[in-house]
Amino acid sequence: MKIERAMLEDFARGAAFLGTGGGGDPYIGRLCCAHAIDLYGAPNMIPLNEVPDDANVFSVAGMGAPTVLVEKMFSLEDAHLAVSKLESFLGRKADAIIAAESGGINATLPVAYAAMRKLPIIDADGMGRAFPAIHMVSFNVYGVSCTPMAIANEHGESAIIETASAKSAEEMGRPLVVHMGASAMLSCYPMSGAQAKRTAVPATMSAAYGIGRAIAAGRKSGGAVDALISYLRTTPYYRHAKVLFDGKIVDLKRETTKGWAIGHCVMAATDGSGERCEIQFQNEHLCARKNGRVVAIVPDLIAIVDRETAEPITTEGLRYGQRVKVIGTSAAPNMRTPEALAVFGPQAFGLGHPFVPIERIQDA
Amino acid sequence: MKIERAMLEDFARGAAFLGTGGGGDPYIGRLCCAHAIDLYGAPNMIPLNEVPDDANVFSVAGMGAPTVLVEKMFSLEDAHLAVSKLESFLGRKADAIIAAESGGINATLPVAYAAMRKLPIIDADGMGRAFPAIHMVSFNVYGVSCTPMAIANEHGESAIIETASAKSAEEMGRPLVVHMGASAMLSCYPMSGAQAKRTAVPATMSAAYGIGRAIAAGRKSGGAVDALISYLRTTPYYRHAKVLFDGKIVDLKRETTKGWAIGHCVMAATDGSGERCEIQFQNEHLCARKNGRVVAIVPDLIAIVDRETAEPITTEGLRYGQRVKVIGTSAAPNMRTPEALAVFGPQAFGLGHPFVPIERIQDA
Repeated sequence: MKIERAMLEDFARGAAFLGTGGGGDPYIGRLCCAHAIDLYGAPNMIPLNEVPDDANVFSVAGMGAPTVLVEKMFSLEDAHLAVSKLESFLGRKADAIIAAESGGINATLPVAYAAMRKLPIIDADGMGRAFPAIHMVSFNVYGVSCTPMAIANEHGESAIIETASAKSAEEMGRPLVVHMGASAMLSCYPMSGAQAKRTAVPATMSAAYGIGRAIAAGRKSGGAVDALISYLRTTPYYRHAKVLFDGKIVDLKRETTKGWAIGHCVMAATDGSGERCEIQFQNEHLCARKNGRVVAIVPDLIAIVDRETAEPITTEGLRYGQRVKVIGTSAAPNMRTPEALAVFGPQAFGLGHPFVPIERIQDA
Repeated sequence: MKIERAMLEDFARGAAFLGTGGGGDPYIGRLCCAHAIDLYGAPNMIPLNEVPDDANVFSVAGMGAPTVLVEKMFSLEDAHLAVSKLESFLGRKADAIIAAESGGINATLPVAYAAMRKLPIIDADGMGRAFPAIHMVSFNVYGVSCTPMAIANEHGESAIIETASAKSAEEMGRPLVVHMGASAMLSCYPMSGAQAKRTAVPATMSAAYGIGRAIAAGRKSGGAVDALISYLRTTPYYRHAKVLFDGKIVDLKRETTKGWAIGHCVMAATDGSGERCEIQFQNEHLCARKNGRVVAIVPDLIAIVDRETAEPITTEGLRYGQRVKVIGTSAAPNMRTPEALAVFGPQAFGLGHPFVPIERIQDA
């Protein structure tokens, strides 16, 4: 399937939903992608199971605080510097591009880059959502080495890092990115087609497109959130989907620190019930509590959308007084295994509450 | 000339003098070097002008706070990881090793590494002293690119950084080194023999040995500081040498911050004259003031030595009550040009006083 220019609005909106608050403004990702398709043509998206075992699969992503990404536009030239540095270092060329995240700008950027390189983009990613750190991907959980990892910025500066641990790659990369202006492009987890098939989360890019399309269709029929929930229930991963809360934002704390957007947001019901919902985030929403009780928690997805249009709202787009709905969905099964939870479950974010699958939480 | 095991005590002591307070404990450098010579044999030291134009010259150095270097021993394996990563990246092998600094541990480490690789060590360096930052070398001043630069640590972690500016290499490398445990090994400024001949400061490694030998000889004849000063006056660079102060340490402030040892030291005369001398340092001594008046300033050399034995005292070795002499000497001519002063003159360290050659300062 070609990813045509006309599909980008839906694709970017769906990616923003999967971004669960993080991953940057989808409008910027859409612009970048549209520009690339205008210049280089529509890239081909191929199913994960059609990637040859011996294909050289390269990822590309932006790293940094989304609050900075809004102001400092991604550039395909910088992305290419990162990927080509890694290609030179490894002595092999990319045969296909894979997204690390199907959420946020990091879903659209690899599509734009695949267009530029006239390479296929794989319909898969490393999480079926977005996460704030390099090691928080299924590739790492299931044994693909994060490094060699290339980082590049708009000044032509680059670094290639090698370390045995993806967490250490994160810890070495983050201060470099902060030096590089709080955002930079990277290429890591270079892998074979066989490794991609073994470790990636399949069909997440097409799911992003489907989510965006459902929202658009729902707006025409007058029930955007209902249409979104209905669509999510047809997907293999996100099918345990529900509206967790309906209310307006009454408190918001957000700081850009150490290259992350960290904070929390509180909503109050407008029906006079006095109910409240609090969401904690680190780039992405980590935990939703309703009247103090956990109703959804990472790696399950927690999105905040406009209550009328179902437009996904990123953490940097949150405003006091906004009328919103909070939507929770299940994550992909390979994102919920004990190995996976060790890397990006609640404990990995310092949360005191254990992971409970959203479908097992009553009264949410 | 071979650098034999028996020469190491003098060589390391002379390097400690040229370290002007920085560069780590010479005893550690000596141990490392002695061990390498025992294992691999004495390396050959060759004059700078005998290096073939097309030789591949590689540097090797430790980066980090000297207060940490004392506790975290340099390892030749880590040094080799840095150099070999750079060799692989560039696709060429080292023909000769050059020190970035002839002061401190970074003078002895390349000798040990040259022994291990059975390569010649060049009798030259990038400053004829020690300095606290990667860009503060004559190689950079006279146009050799600092990068690609390889950094490695004892966990087998490594990074290769590329950037157009040596200052930026410093800024990118420093947080990586802090992550790597506040010290790591690096190889940068890969250059040709022709570039080394054009940019390096010649004969500084043999000068370090000569300084150490003069101190040792002076101790036997009962006048270590006098012997040291006499020897310095026979050298081409350090010939404007004088005792700037004679007294005891009465105040000392030293912090390890951002990977550097930063602080100041105050000495008072013991002859009842009430005179005082204050020395500011950032790893290395930057400026000496006597009764508030500047008597020596970077890039000229300021060393603190034991007043009886002329043993050089590093910043981490300074203690309240020590009886010391402060010795100032001129720097090499190519370290005092306007281009050189722009990189490591007083302003580069945030000092408000302009550079004045020590030989032009009266009453010092």
